[in-house]
Amino acid sequence: MFKDGLKDAAARVDAGFAEVFARYPDLPVIQGMAYATNGGKRLRAYLVMESARIHGIENALMPALAIEAIHAYSLVHDDLPSMDDDDLRRGLPTVHKKWDEGTAVLVGDALQTLGFELVLSPECHADPAVRSDLALTLARAAGAQGMVLGQALDIAAETADQPLTLDEIIALQNGKTGALIRWSAEAGARLAQADTAPLTAYADALGLAFQIADDILDVTGDEAAMGKAVGKDADRGKATFVSLLGLDGAKSRAENLVEQACEALSPYGNKAQGLIDAARFVIARQT
Amino acid sequence: MFKDGLKDAAARVDAGFAEVFARYPDLPVIQGMAYATNGGKRLRAYLVMESARIHGIENALMPALAIEAIHAYSLVHDDLPSMDDDDLRRGLPTVHKKWDEGTAVLVGDALQTLGFELVLSPECHADPAVRSDLALTLARAAGAQGMVLGQALDIAAETADQPLTLDEIIALQNGKTGALIRWSAEAGARLAQADTAPLTAYADALGLAFQIADDILDVTGDEAAMGKAVGKDADRGKATFVSLLGLDGAKSRAENLVEQACEALSPYGNKAQGLIDAARFVIARQT
Repeated sequence: MFKDGLKDAAARVDAGFAEVFARYPDLPVIQGMAYATNGGKRLRAYLVMESARIHGIENALMPALAIEAIHAYSLVHDDLPSMDDDDLRRGLPTVHKKWDEGTAVLVGDALQTLGFELVLSPECHADPAVRSDLALTLARAAGAQGMVLGQALDIAAETADQPLTLDEIIALQNGKTGALIRWSAEAGARLAQADTAPLTAYADALGLAFQIADDILDVTGDEAAMGKAVGKDADRGKATFVSLLGLDGAKSRAENLVEQACEALSPYGNKAQGLIDAARFVIARQT
Repeated sequence: MFKDGLKDAAARVDAGFAEVFARYPDLPVIQGMAYATNGGKRLRAYLVMESARIHGIENALMPALAIEAIHAYSLVHDDLPSMDDDDLRRGLPTVHKKWDEGTAVLVGDALQTLGFELVLSPECHADPAVRSDLALTLARAAGAQGMVLGQALDIAAETADQPLTLDEIIALQNGKTGALIRWSAEAGARLAQADTAPLTAYADALGLAFQIADDILDVTGDEAAMGKAVGKDADRGKATFVSLLGLDGAKSRAENLVEQACEALSPYGNKAQGLIDAARFVIARQT
């Protein structure tokens, strides 16, 4: 049931991106943008669409595409040789491997811009106040007080004398993955100009559970199924939730967070079933 | 007189950026953002401020900072080894030379985000419809139908069998530098919700004149005064306005364009003096 919902969101996102890129000239940078936004779990798009549905909004395609574009930009740049230096992403060569580094820099740049263009387009919402609110919060989530801050803390950790503490890892992940997940979950309330607080509480717990699950998968996951390298963190002696809490400790922390996330949704009653399913999926997933 | 105006714009931009970066934590990526936005002619900020002044708007600091942040992002990424591979910018080591490539990628990414954050901040304009209009047009100017398209055409030209024709170079530059200059010049009309047409015509001529002047300076300019490498285009056998029109032909084309730009401003009468001065400066500059 949840998997159908995720599949449905993914199909709508794929069709949306196809329509967007068809408007552009056929250049390597555009091909790279289409390639980089293809595939993926579409969890962020799903969160946008489900939080919108709770508020009675059926069409949230533009903000869903926007967050997937921003997410894809961050992956393309993360994978660069000067960053994480990854050759594989979603089982396929990374953009700089398939094309070249210059193209990958430009593809990421253009995907970030596209994210803002989509969320600001009149198709996103009839009220420009809603569009500017969505775009401003997206900029804050993506920028130097959100995702980029998490990235910067991650880079700083690589050269630090000591491994990070639990609080430091939480702060890092809160920026690196938490900020975009929070924006996605809040988007529905923003579209409806409703209170975001329950969704913020949901997303804060979910984002952390998501990252703990990622660290667990980096230890227990199957490289072929995940379509990317695993075990890299342990190889580098990097502190992770697993190294700090142990495998069982990390698992039970993630489970508690998922319960917390679900409780935060109680104001929405059974309209929140899709978001509850998403939270349960986050720790059950194998990829 | 014009130089005073430009200096005044530059001082306001410097003070504005200092205030913005003081809010952020002291990490290399933030230092790099401050470093990359320091210096420069501030021509784009000046165009924003002067086009606003024509419409009776005295405070256009936020959109001026926004366009300078976007411009700085494009320079940081352009200078990367995988792009133009430049060691010097404004007489100082480029960001990837002073820090490292990963930091430079992140600095450019964060500066792009900052550009949108600034233009969308309530301080920019009280009306969210104006802010979302400014941000959407900025995204279009910066993205894969504007600046990134110009970049992509530039990369494609490097590996093309034949040098570009004049029309192709005009299309390339229209994206690469023209789009941000156009947005800057139009910003004042957008802030005032007034007709942008005269400013668009001004900016289209000015942007092209600016790029022709750049090509002329790449041949006649002094490396020490310019603070960056010169003669690179000729060394690479790249088609430029000078290689296609000859030095005298390029100069007279630029002069004609500047006259065209000034004529487009006639609806504004003598309120447009600042923009007229800017157009004359563009072909008189030595750096």
